Amino acid sequence: MTKLPSHTDSSFDADLDALNALLAEMGTLALGMLADSALLLQAPDMAGIDALIATDRRLDTLRDSVEDHAVRVIARRQPVANDLRTVVAAMRIATTLERVGDLAKNVAKRSAQLDGSGAPREALQAARRMVLRARDDLQLALRAHETGDIGLAEKVWRSDTDLDGMLNSLFRELLTHMAENPRAITACTHLLFCAKNAERIGDHATAVAETVSYVVTGTAFTGDRPKLDTVAPEG
Amino acid sequence: MTKLPSHTDSSFDADLDALNALLAEMGTLALGMLADSALLLQAPDMAGIDALIATDRRLDTLRDSVEDHAVRVIARRQPVANDLRTVVAAMRIATTLERVGDLAKNVAKRSAQLDGSGAPREALQAARRMVLRARDDLQLALRAHETGDIGLAEKVWRSDTDLDGMLNSLFRELLTHMAENPRAITACTHLLFCAKNAERIGDHATAVAETVSYVVTGTAFTGDRPKLDTVAPEG
Repeated sequence: MTKLPSHTDSSFDADLDALNALLAEMGTLALGMLADSALLLQAPDMAGIDALIATDRRLDTLRDSVEDHAVRVIARRQPVANDLRTVVAAMRIATTLERVGDLAKNVAKRSAQLDGSGAPREALQAARRMVLRARDDLQLALRAHETGDIGLAEKVWRSDTDLDGMLNSLFRELLTHMAENPRAITACTHLLFCAKNAERIGDHATAVAETVSYVVTGTAFTGDRPKLDTVAPEG
Repeated sequence: MTKLPSHTDSSFDADLDALNALLAEMGTLALGMLADSALLLQAPDMAGIDALIATDRRLDTLRDSVEDHAVRVIARRQPVANDLRTVVAAMRIATTLERVGDLAKNVAKRSAQLDGSGAPREALQAARRMVLRARDDLQLALRAHETGDIGLAEKVWRSDTDLDGMLNSLFRELLTHMAENPRAITACTHLLFCAKNAERIGDHATAVAETVSYVVTGTAFTGDRPKLDTVAPEG
């Protein structure tokens, strides 16, 4: 959570620390789920998938805790300006991390269908790289939030087009492979959805970056977010 | 918004009415976007797509207004119990409707790629029916929220498996069609994503239904939500 100057009311700082701790735990779990789901794409394993599903439930519970805690802080302390934005941002980021968990879980579940399915190995690797790249983006965005580093946040916000490009290129590859290998269509469809999920996780990383801008400056980054936003199959 | 007994503090009622009005406007826009995106699947049209993109922006702005307003109400009135849950629920539903708008926009954008694309007409119709069914589910869930009708909310919550079944059946149909008509693979991929989006909109309708339970009873519906949750391609 963005560091604020200390308050004369130190109990408000304690409230923020508690919110901070919940968010940090959520961040660690979400990043771990992304690393694990990337690993599962490489080496599917039912026990690993079950573990990831359990972690996702924990993430849902933590999201509710952040919301409960944030609402109590707003009611009790009636924060304004930067303090209020900090608390609202915690709720937003918790919601985002909960959605990231859902997407990571979905990738993990699909991995079970990819083992020995005839999905092209290079495409599997490309999907795995996308998940790891989305993980890295999310890690940087969370770090920007923790340290209030607006420059780092803007960097994450601007780099999301890389994942869009990776998605477009993988989609083209998969569509070609499907046309030439009709028996691989089901497996390739799973990979299409895994890649799309990774791209959406990247969008969530930029949403965290936008929240950092909201906390620090009170406004969004200026200009439209750079985005390879086409109506192509990749859209 | 769920009707509450009048408060001695009538300014709190006025605050709830204002939140109520914002949510009602969001609901009307989201339901309209779903009807329009279903129509676009039948008859793609660039002006219609542009209009839908503009509506999605308005939905984003309204979501921010709901959040701002809810946070101010919590700070000023320090509501507890049912009152607090009502305000928190408004924030949750606003977030859900904003996500529904994103999904409707995505369906609309894909419709431009489906015109004369060789996508099988029956599959197009099936995807259209899924979007309309998701719209109906959302409408019922919003009505349950407005009237505090927990029975209606539970009905929506339990009926989501219908959309899951429609998705599974359409996926099977599309995968078969792709295997037999490699030139239709790109178009069918668009339809796969449209159908998946409709199913996710159905999930959002059940999320609204769950929020009604949270407001009225303070707890979630009991038991796992009935869900055809497999690791099949449809997952």
